[in-house]
Amino acid sequence: MMRTDILISEVGPRDGLQSISAVMPTEAKKAWIAAEAAAGVREIEVGSFVPATLLPQLADTAEIVAFAKTIPGLTVAVLVPNLRGAEAAIEAGADKITLPLSVSESHSMANLRRSHGQVLAEAAAIATLIAAQPRAKRPHFEGSLSTVFGCTIEGAIPLRQILRLAEQLMAAGCDEVGLSDTTGYADPRAVKEMIREVRGVVGANALTGIHLHNTRGLGLANVLAALEMDIETIDSSLGGIGGCPFAPGASGNVVTEDLVFMLQAMGLRTGIDLEELLGVRRILADALPGEPLYGFTPDAGLPLGFVPEPASIPLETI
Amino acid sequence: MMRTDILISEVGPRDGLQSISAVMPTEAKKAWIAAEAAAGVREIEVGSFVPATLLPQLADTAEIVAFAKTIPGLTVAVLVPNLRGAEAAIEAGADKITLPLSVSESHSMANLRRSHGQVLAEAAAIATLIAAQPRAKRPHFEGSLSTVFGCTIEGAIPLRQILRLAEQLMAAGCDEVGLSDTTGYADPRAVKEMIREVRGVVGANALTGIHLHNTRGLGLANVLAALEMDIETIDSSLGGIGGCPFAPGASGNVVTEDLVFMLQAMGLRTGIDLEELLGVRRILADALPGEPLYGFTPDAGLPLGFVPEPASIPLETI
Repeated sequence: MMRTDILISEVGPRDGLQSISAVMPTEAKKAWIAAEAAAGVREIEVGSFVPATLLPQLADTAEIVAFAKTIPGLTVAVLVPNLRGAEAAIEAGADKITLPLSVSESHSMANLRRSHGQVLAEAAAIATLIAAQPRAKRPHFEGSLSTVFGCTIEGAIPLRQILRLAEQLMAAGCDEVGLSDTTGYADPRAVKEMIREVRGVVGANALTGIHLHNTRGLGLANVLAALEMDIETIDSSLGGIGGCPFAPGASGNVVTEDLVFMLQAMGLRTGIDLEELLGVRRILADALPGEPLYGFTPDAGLPLGFVPEPASIPLETI
Repeated sequence: MMRTDILISEVGPRDGLQSISAVMPTEAKKAWIAAEAAAGVREIEVGSFVPATLLPQLADTAEIVAFAKTIPGLTVAVLVPNLRGAEAAIEAGADKITLPLSVSESHSMANLRRSHGQVLAEAAAIATLIAAQPRAKRPHFEGSLSTVFGCTIEGAIPLRQILRLAEQLMAAGCDEVGLSDTTGYADPRAVKEMIREVRGVVGANALTGIHLHNTRGLGLANVLAALEMDIETIDSSLGGIGGCPFAPGASGNVVTEDLVFMLQAMGLRTGIDLEELLGVRRILADALPGEPLYGFTPDAGLPLGFVPEPASIPLETI
């Protein structure tokens, strides 16, 4: 059985923009986020609390979080590389914070410049910080296992190492772990096996989301495999922009437009008005001139007689 | 359980070239077919026996069939629109002939200029012609249910109409029926349901192949759904060229390169040397200058540590 309500987590304003050298103006980001939320997207990763010297594209993350928090019903997610980032995220009022931990230690050193032990120590410090907040200010805390389907430096990572890190993230105080196909190495069988294995260690309730790339064109096939394993949150980016800038050859997120079409065609519910979502692409095209946008549904249009999901049916709270 | 051996039927020389206005020189077609067969592709739809006035790109189909027949182990497939085409196909020595029947009668009139009754009469005449051949010259005969997931003129086609046509094709003497997502309307759930429904009428052994498009980016997700329903033959085209020229807005076959990567990554066997297959793309690019080629794996390359399928293991005969 597949659940009927799927949460799409739009990661374009973070994962997309960090991969692009052009800096999107803050007002354009706000317009984009507001338009996607108006189309029914209920979770958006709006930025990353990293030093502006490293990612000037995301230097306005605090302002963007504050803006996004004014949108009713929107879960405002951010990426944080460490405790300092988590402090800023909580200060800004983020609803969800994600700390990436690359299961490849070589990739972790290249990407975050931290060993596994150092990242786990940050995770524990962040969990302590969150616990010290008043209940209303405690964000959901996810430890994201990145390069989990393989690494461009190390290749395949031993499963026992992945499972140990998943356990250690939970022991450090994460609310859940996520899986991230940073390098676009995943295939449908690997997706199912990894979900099964990691859940065997952390429990089904502590693995509910997945971040897949479309690097080798398998994005939606891998999403389907994840749905068949009862995953409820799927990361994607409008126009498919983004990918991991530190993993050579890796680019291309799952395209939100095609993903929403697939889910709605399957009779699943996203809470999203697909026609309105397709219109948001214009904001992206205008704000990022010359930047390639991906996806097939925007050009092909919707099938004749396609019945979009009824917007009036309230979604289960996820 | 998913079968482990998958037959990829390359349709680029037929479905791809008929969608392109440029005429590929006969020698380039031969080089392409020979190179794909050398890479391990075991079935290729090499052309279509339609009047040269309609599709000048495929006017050399008889010569191409004769050439392809000299390649050991290759199943040489062709499309035929009617009895006259089937006569030419048998004369040329084709191993497999496919007669399309659009389940949308409006599309059938637009595409083949024939009603359902007329196409079924052609199917019966072709079956009679095949039965009259000596055993060694009898091609496998597939009736392909096209626009089965919806039509750009009529929208969704009633299921009972589809099932009746499937039954009638078998009654007319087809060896099996196929499903064709001519318009790119399919989604994974629809693929599974349609396979289940049509098999309920014709039996599992009379529905073993599917022709899916990538019009809305769902090509490989739909393939995965078909594999999970124990489909063994998947149509695709190198570089994703092709689609249906008579269905407005419909374009893009499943990309052979990405499909083979997905299958091999999942541990399934195709008999294909993926590195060698990727090299064949060069022939296509040289012979069709300016024509867009699709697919992600050719640019991204293979994952570090990717283990291609061992070429030495003999495949089950399909």
